Amino acid sequence: MTLQPPQGEDEFETIARLLRPLARAPEAFGLADDAAAIPSRPGEDLIVSKDVLVAGVHFLEGDPLDLVARKLLRANLSDLAAKAAEPYGYFLAVAWPSGTGWDERERLAAGLGRDQELFGLALLGGDTVSTPGPMMLSATILGWTPAGAMVRRSAARPGDRVLVSGTIGDGWLGLRAARGELDGVLGPEAAEWLAGRYRLPEPRLELRDSLRAWAGGAADVSDGLVADAAHIAAASGVQLRLELERLPVSEPATQWLARQEDRAEALVALATGGDDYEVVLTCATAHAGTLISEAEASGVALTDIGQVVEGEGTAALLEGRELELRRTGWRHG
Amino acid sequence: MTLQPPQGEDEFETIARLLRPLARAPEAFGLADDAAAIPSRPGEDLIVSKDVLVAGVHFLEGDPLDLVARKLLRANLSDLAAKAAEPYGYFLAVAWPSGTGWDERERLAAGLGRDQELFGLALLGGDTVSTPGPMMLSATILGWTPAGAMVRRSAARPGDRVLVSGTIGDGWLGLRAARGELDGVLGPEAAEWLAGRYRLPEPRLELRDSLRAWAGGAADVSDGLVADAAHIAAASGVQLRLELERLPVSEPATQWLARQEDRAEALVALATGGDDYEVVLTCATAHAGTLISEAEASGVALTDIGQVVEGEGTAALLEGRELELRRTGWRHG
Repeated sequence: MTLQPPQGEDEFETIARLLRPLARAPEAFGLADDAAAIPSRPGEDLIVSKDVLVAGVHFLEGDPLDLVARKLLRANLSDLAAKAAEPYGYFLAVAWPSGTGWDERERLAAGLGRDQELFGLALLGGDTVSTPGPMMLSATILGWTPAGAMVRRSAARPGDRVLVSGTIGDGWLGLRAARGELDGVLGPEAAEWLAGRYRLPEPRLELRDSLRAWAGGAADVSDGLVADAAHIAAASGVQLRLELERLPVSEPATQWLARQEDRAEALVALATGGDDYEVVLTCATAHAGTLISEAEASGVALTDIGQVVEGEGTAALLEGRELELRRTGWRHG
Repeated sequence: MTLQPPQGEDEFETIARLLRPLARAPEAFGLADDAAAIPSRPGEDLIVSKDVLVAGVHFLEGDPLDLVARKLLRANLSDLAAKAAEPYGYFLAVAWPSGTGWDERERLAAGLGRDQELFGLALLGGDTVSTPGPMMLSATILGWTPAGAMVRRSAARPGDRVLVSGTIGDGWLGLRAARGELDGVLGPEAAEWLAGRYRLPEPRLELRDSLRAWAGGAADVSDGLVADAAHIAAASGVQLRLELERLPVSEPATQWLARQEDRAEALVALATGGDDYEVVLTCATAHAGTLISEAEASGVALTDIGQVVEGEGTAALLEGRELELRRTGWRHG
């Protein structure tokens, strides 16, 4: 006689039918053991990061679960991108709200499978439980770099330039668009594009080689450009000065900007909003041109948005004036 | 000017004041980077497991958070123990219910710190968020074994003996004791001892060398002895036959057993209850005596509770009769 594990039929079936097919790497033992075994790679470091998403806090309650799963992986992949690590695998924890249906579970697994394939990622293990609260997802992501080659937050030096990938502010505008708050402000196409940027960020993994070659400090832009630049500043013991008129802004965000009364306030909103999953980095002035060209050749636009100076924190400038940034808003300095 | 991260002052302060002091290993970069960097150890495998605890599901809502933190680490350490891995470090995710006070956060950190020291474990990174739901904790734990030396679930062979460490059923009885359900059935001392076994399990890390030398399959007893034996059975393609009269039972559990009308039913309850965090393992009959002596010398009692035969699943026997086990109960076969 065979006994079902007492974790409940749904969790058992979820692992057996949905997650096991995603865990084909030999390290995962088909999710049939208590742990995964990851062989060391002499001369390499394992780069590890862990993120949690809570429904209603980090994604919208009604968001399709395939997109939520892909956002979970991409938010974590974005950490690897900023550290110039090569994606390897992940451990997954899912807390399902009681009564989560099979369709929704399948949809989540489909999203995981799609992005695993897209980014060369293996499911290595994890845990699924049920919860009386909101859905919660956690991924522990693993990547590899040559030993000692992880790009740190702490290597920004006065005199360096500050660069950022892609466009900034789409994540924050995209959340507002997904909530319908930009209806009437922007056309449906622009709003949909922004909501897509919020729901499905693009980890900048193509930056790997140029970051390793030329970057000083780097971080991914998840909390907002100003805050993540401040993380680099704090770790490096410097100040990052951002010139907001240089902020790379998408076409839909440009349309939104044009409709705002106070351009400074609007630019600060874009620079402090979160969820962009771009990379902010510093590099010696002499290498900035090379880094920008190499990144462009690999398909990622980098924009020079400021400089590193002695001091602390992030400063934001507009037309030479320093804006005073506050956690709950901003005002002209 | 310095800007606080937008994750909220509580989470920022929690990381800066409570978690950073726990993350002194150089791999963690003082929690001041996006990721940890773990140097490879040539000739070794990294053993990784991930578990989630939800308040009200995996621990009681009112449980002191230092004990909850220690149970989280110990539940994960128990996975390492069953795999014969040497504890190394962990990544932590905490979702705090809105309004969790500073005292409670300090208490959780104190529990982590205490067991980190006790078990030689380093905090390597993680994430803290707030949630409108119940408290949730997740740990991804890392350990090391010599390459290929992880003790698997899948190496049980017909003819092997089945051994289990410590005593079985204390976790399940301890949960009932912690809820006050054993008041009047057992004296306060026995009830308290059992509740302590539920709240603070003892990972059997001392078994490492003897498991590596002699064990076939092994798993930790978290879902319940019968279910975890079934995991070994499924992974190995065999049946594990457990003789319930041989079940190692603690003195307080013996007192409880003496007060039960149906001894078979009571023994099945102990063997199917969860949260024991002992190790169930198989080994060749010729080596069982050596394994038991070695384990005893390292301070862990092992009891021979049955044998491995051809077949599938777990069978439970009492005085030679096979009991039929069901997920929602049991009856005589």
